[in-house]
Amino acid sequence: MKIIEDANREALKRMLSGDPVLVDVIPASAAIPELKQRMILHAGPPIGWDRLCGPMRGAVTGIAVFEGWAPDLEAAENLAADGAFELHPNHHFDAVGPMTGLTTISQPVMVIENRTFGNRAYCAINEGLGKVLRFGGNDEEVLDRLRWLRDVLGPAMGKALRSGDGIPLKSLIARGLTMGDEMHQRNVACSGLTLRALAPALATTTTSDDGLPEILAFVGGNDQFFLNIAMAMGKAIMDPVRDIDGSTLVTAMSRNGTDFGIRVSGTGDTWFTAPVEMPEGLYFPGFTESDANPDMGDSTIVETIGLGGFAMGAAPAVAGFVGAGAASGAAVFTRTMGEITFGENPEWTIPALDYLGVPTGIDIRLVVETGLAPTINTGIAHKEPGVGQVGAGVVRAPMSCFEQALRGFAERIGVS
Amino acid sequence: MKIIEDANREALKRMLSGDPVLVDVIPASAAIPELKQRMILHAGPPIGWDRLCGPMRGAVTGIAVFEGWAPDLEAAENLAADGAFELHPNHHFDAVGPMTGLTTISQPVMVIENRTFGNRAYCAINEGLGKVLRFGGNDEEVLDRLRWLRDVLGPAMGKALRSGDGIPLKSLIARGLTMGDEMHQRNVACSGLTLRALAPALATTTTSDDGLPEILAFVGGNDQFFLNIAMAMGKAIMDPVRDIDGSTLVTAMSRNGTDFGIRVSGTGDTWFTAPVEMPEGLYFPGFTESDANPDMGDSTIVETIGLGGFAMGAAPAVAGFVGAGAASGAAVFTRTMGEITFGENPEWTIPALDYLGVPTGIDIRLVVETGLAPTINTGIAHKEPGVGQVGAGVVRAPMSCFEQALRGFAERIGVS
Repeated sequence: MKIIEDANREALKRMLSGDPVLVDVIPASAAIPELKQRMILHAGPPIGWDRLCGPMRGAVTGIAVFEGWAPDLEAAENLAADGAFELHPNHHFDAVGPMTGLTTISQPVMVIENRTFGNRAYCAINEGLGKVLRFGGNDEEVLDRLRWLRDVLGPAMGKALRSGDGIPLKSLIARGLTMGDEMHQRNVACSGLTLRALAPALATTTTSDDGLPEILAFVGGNDQFFLNIAMAMGKAIMDPVRDIDGSTLVTAMSRNGTDFGIRVSGTGDTWFTAPVEMPEGLYFPGFTESDANPDMGDSTIVETIGLGGFAMGAAPAVAGFVGAGAASGAAVFTRTMGEITFGENPEWTIPALDYLGVPTGIDIRLVVETGLAPTINTGIAHKEPGVGQVGAGVVRAPMSCFEQALRGFAERIGVS
Repeated sequence: MKIIEDANREALKRMLSGDPVLVDVIPASAAIPELKQRMILHAGPPIGWDRLCGPMRGAVTGIAVFEGWAPDLEAAENLAADGAFELHPNHHFDAVGPMTGLTTISQPVMVIENRTFGNRAYCAINEGLGKVLRFGGNDEEVLDRLRWLRDVLGPAMGKALRSGDGIPLKSLIARGLTMGDEMHQRNVACSGLTLRALAPALATTTTSDDGLPEILAFVGGNDQFFLNIAMAMGKAIMDPVRDIDGSTLVTAMSRNGTDFGIRVSGTGDTWFTAPVEMPEGLYFPGFTESDANPDMGDSTIVETIGLGGFAMGAAPAVAGFVGAGAASGAAVFTRTMGEITFGENPEWTIPALDYLGVPTGIDIRLVVETGLAPTINTGIAHKEPGVGQVGAGVVRAPMSCFEQALRGFAERIGVS
């Protein structure tokens, strides 16, 4: 139908014309004025405490202690069960978060400005791998790291970014795609490029007494540092694509560890949800699939903009890490995702595929028609609270979300 | 012949067991005690002023002014013509240099220690692209940059490196190969990884008053920064492979802009030379092949250890930059070089080729037998002194060097 074609063309145009720039790091309370004490933003579609998965519960109790809402984890859990904390999706407040993805009042958030449309999106700073809050970790080591991010790294990054014009991300991603990143499970190159861009300003605005060597070591030692930037960038790019009448393109995919939810441009802010699936992947030594929590996090926003599983062909080395088969087969994932997307991104290209643009704009019609659900590269959390990351893998978005969305879309435009 | 097989096995074993570490930056005079005033080490096999190409002459006159041996370029040229400067190959003094590759008494050199064998190799610091001494540039802008490298960056890098255990390069290269570098014409990833490794120590040992922001900006802004490190690493790896009786493996390939020379393990320090060839490549805007100087530099040491043109399959994006055809065809270069090499490097692998090790140990017998000369990725200098880089391309080592070497080798082992 022409109305759908036109709407999707407009949606793709807005996606491709976005100009995301990392401009600041500020406390979440300053970024999101609605945030208040005892309010917790989480990954995925809406959910209550009673249905929260293990790592999400672990993170909620951890962040309650971090924010001073509870003296210890046990007290925090009792408070949570009593409904003392207000839970909302990050997506309802211009934010995203990886895995558990909690955003609360005193955490620092990175600010991505989409300079074409003027909107902003936010994401907390990546904590590194292993036992971290986003994978359900919540002990003192985890909370101490969050304090350091809040008191040292966040303010220093903010000062450095404000001293210049920010870091334009469109060209940085283009470069990262020539350096083996897909920006979901592999962010080595983009993390390095960010450090490179940030280091001179950091060295001008922060002294070694204020932690400069530790800051450079932390950012330089965290190969997933860029993930959270890529996610906020995805949110900043996709928010202006919401609410285009007649568009069948997906504007968000997101999981809370229990439900997977998608939003579609032509159906506004409705979440179409289904139970999350279990990733197929590789486990860190000592862990198996029986330890794993199913799929979780807002990080699927990167697949929504053509990266992650959609850009696997740029990152043959990630195929082994996520257990996706032979490295030489990585291109197959990208080509397959080309069958469910409305277009390609001519500025984000993959050298090994002779500069094919990454497949961009997931069309729910094509997903349902082909039976090909979006491929997602993801980290895997332990299913119990307090443990952390146990592996990485590949997972499919549940087909039911797309079927429901297509029915909802049909009703909305008056087709039965 | 078994004696040759055994000798080559020993040679390959020494190559693969090398453990190169970037440990220091010190003045060339401290690194190479034989260096004295008016002595100039250059790229390639031995050559006199009368046969020097244009960019090499440009660099010689520039460095003479830099070192205070002449008041200006014209005076320097007259002195050079009068034989006032003593010219020697870098290779005769444990050193290498890219393009013109001049090493003189007061320049800082990076020190690579091969911890398996205890030997050291040296290379000056990379100046960046465009109008630079290594491409024959010699004006005040060029010399000012050399002064800054000598007075600011060199000492700061040395201090930072001495404060720790150095930067191990074997694993860094392994990582760079998963990030699109081939370490000759593409060093984006390894340059970034080096900055990442160096930045925390730099921030501890150098303040912003001592130029820390400028240092971080220079290293972070120079995508070829790592080239000179890769070259000194190559020299440090190959020197212990010299003089193995009966080995037909190449220990050095090198060009002075007039002659191409190779050395072979079983024939010791003899240079087998032939006229250099003209690279086929792509030119920067405003330049054409008629501006180009033929092949030049010690940088072919990286091909000698399996990188550069031999690792093209790891770096599809470089194929376009050097005009080597479709990016998807980059793997062909690597597979072809596998036909003239004695083995593969199991620690330096290419993900897109399902972790094939880079082809390692050029065997002069295989080169002559197959008629396949080594493929080299290279920068292209303007043929006139004082201009600088005009492009990048691919060039073959002259077959005649290998034929002469094979004859020399046969005589040496008493086969006619």
